[in-house]
Amino acid sequence: MKKKNKKVNAAIVIIGNEILSGRTQDKNIAFISNWLNSKCGISISEVRIIPDLENIIVKSVLELSKKFNYVFTTGGIGPTHDDITAKSISKAFKVKYEYHKEAFTILENYYGKSKFNDGRKKMAKMPRGSKLIYNPSSAAPGFIIKNVLSLPGVPSILNSMIENCKRFLIKGSKVHSKTLNFYTVESNISKQLESIQKKYKKDVDIGSYPFFRLGKIGVSVVTRSVSKIKLHQVHQDLLKLVRIKKIDILKI
Amino acid sequence: MKKKNKKVNAAIVIIGNEILSGRTQDKNIAFISNWLNSKCGISISEVRIIPDLENIIVKSVLELSKKFNYVFTTGGIGPTHDDITAKSISKAFKVKYEYHKEAFTILENYYGKSKFNDGRKKMAKMPRGSKLIYNPSSAAPGFIIKNVLSLPGVPSILNSMIENCKRFLIKGSKVHSKTLNFYTVESNISKQLESIQKKYKKDVDIGSYPFFRLGKIGVSVVTRSVSKIKLHQVHQDLLKLVRIKKIDILKI
Repeated sequence: MKKKNKKVNAAIVIIGNEILSGRTQDKNIAFISNWLNSKCGISISEVRIIPDLENIIVKSVLELSKKFNYVFTTGGIGPTHDDITAKSISKAFKVKYEYHKEAFTILENYYGKSKFNDGRKKMAKMPRGSKLIYNPSSAAPGFIIKNVLSLPGVPSILNSMIENCKRFLIKGSKVHSKTLNFYTVESNISKQLESIQKKYKKDVDIGSYPFFRLGKIGVSVVTRSVSKIKLHQVHQDLLKLVRIKKIDILKI
Repeated sequence: MKKKNKKVNAAIVIIGNEILSGRTQDKNIAFISNWLNSKCGISISEVRIIPDLENIIVKSVLELSKKFNYVFTTGGIGPTHDDITAKSISKAFKVKYEYHKEAFTILENYYGKSKFNDGRKKMAKMPRGSKLIYNPSSAAPGFIIKNVLSLPGVPSILNSMIENCKRFLIKGSKVHSKTLNFYTVESNISKQLESIQKKYKKDVDIGSYPFFRLGKIGVSVVTRSVSKIKLHQVHQDLLKLVRIKKIDILKI
């Protein structure tokens, strides 16, 4: 029986002035995207990096949650004044921003009653109706409301929580990918690549990316498809091109 | 005479399936943002990462070019089939996508007539009315049309071209920033940070970011402002907080 391809997509919203200003190099986009594709068959279709401003968070989350199956937000769920993600998402979905009972209990147990101060209590406040995304490294949970999943910005904590998102997600078809690294320049193969892309228009996405390695220039040709068979066919066409053009391949 | 603060902002559009898929870690956002702020006093207000799809490039560029002073695009200006940035921007601004005479001459001289093939010629095609952003490393120029500046995606080439964007940009007020690294947890200072933020609401942006270093946890408090005087005042308030709370500072 032929398996039907099921496209499930998502957007990522990185909330944080520190990424926009260039102070911090983002590490979450590649991690979330790789995890979603390999574990859930979900492809990232758009990423936005926005400042810690309520009206912009509200607008971005609403717009993207209508357009895609899921929206992942990162950042802004800590205890300080610039952590306004939960409040903003409550506003976006017009629900109350209030203590989540289970989150409150988790945090109270983690810190102990005497050290459970206002800042820490703030991390238990979420949009009404949220479900928790558990946090095995520092207790403070993320949350999901409708199709929006909110995670923290610190990469090590986010990474430890990602598996706990799985149960909320519908699985799609995994996109497989193959890369061939040619020792040539793009313009030497652009015509042929274009005709191969046309041949597999519907099934395979072919990308071409120049690289520089050990003083030599080359082109990584990346093919992506939900069909392993089609991917294999494109691969054969590319190897044919390599033989005709007498191009060396870099094996890594 | 008091210098007037002039806010100039920009958006970055990263065009590339390889970034969305997580295959490639973006390096251009932080570089462009840091350069724009330090050299031109321009702040990045939004970043979008989008796929190599014409209708999405058209929509994103149009939307952001209306919203911000400048839009920088990266990626998609090479010789292959997936390089559709110049064509898409032509469509966005409803101008012809055609050979730019000077770009054509630059590329023809660089490659030599016999090696100036169709793929390479494609890199001379741009929206009518574009001005060139010269490329000192690999000849193929970027371009500016209206308030949209298009640069390549390969970081080393982009980095070598960025200075050539300067003459097209209006200068704004530089945002200065100071960072204090406290050996404490966010919730220990969240209340005080909030009141300091309220005190300088209009002038200083205070961000708080947890860090882990050499097995110890801490908080980086980043203050940003166009006014060095206000920044100094906030700094004094933060040092007062450090003394009251008996917090150690990490000097780096």
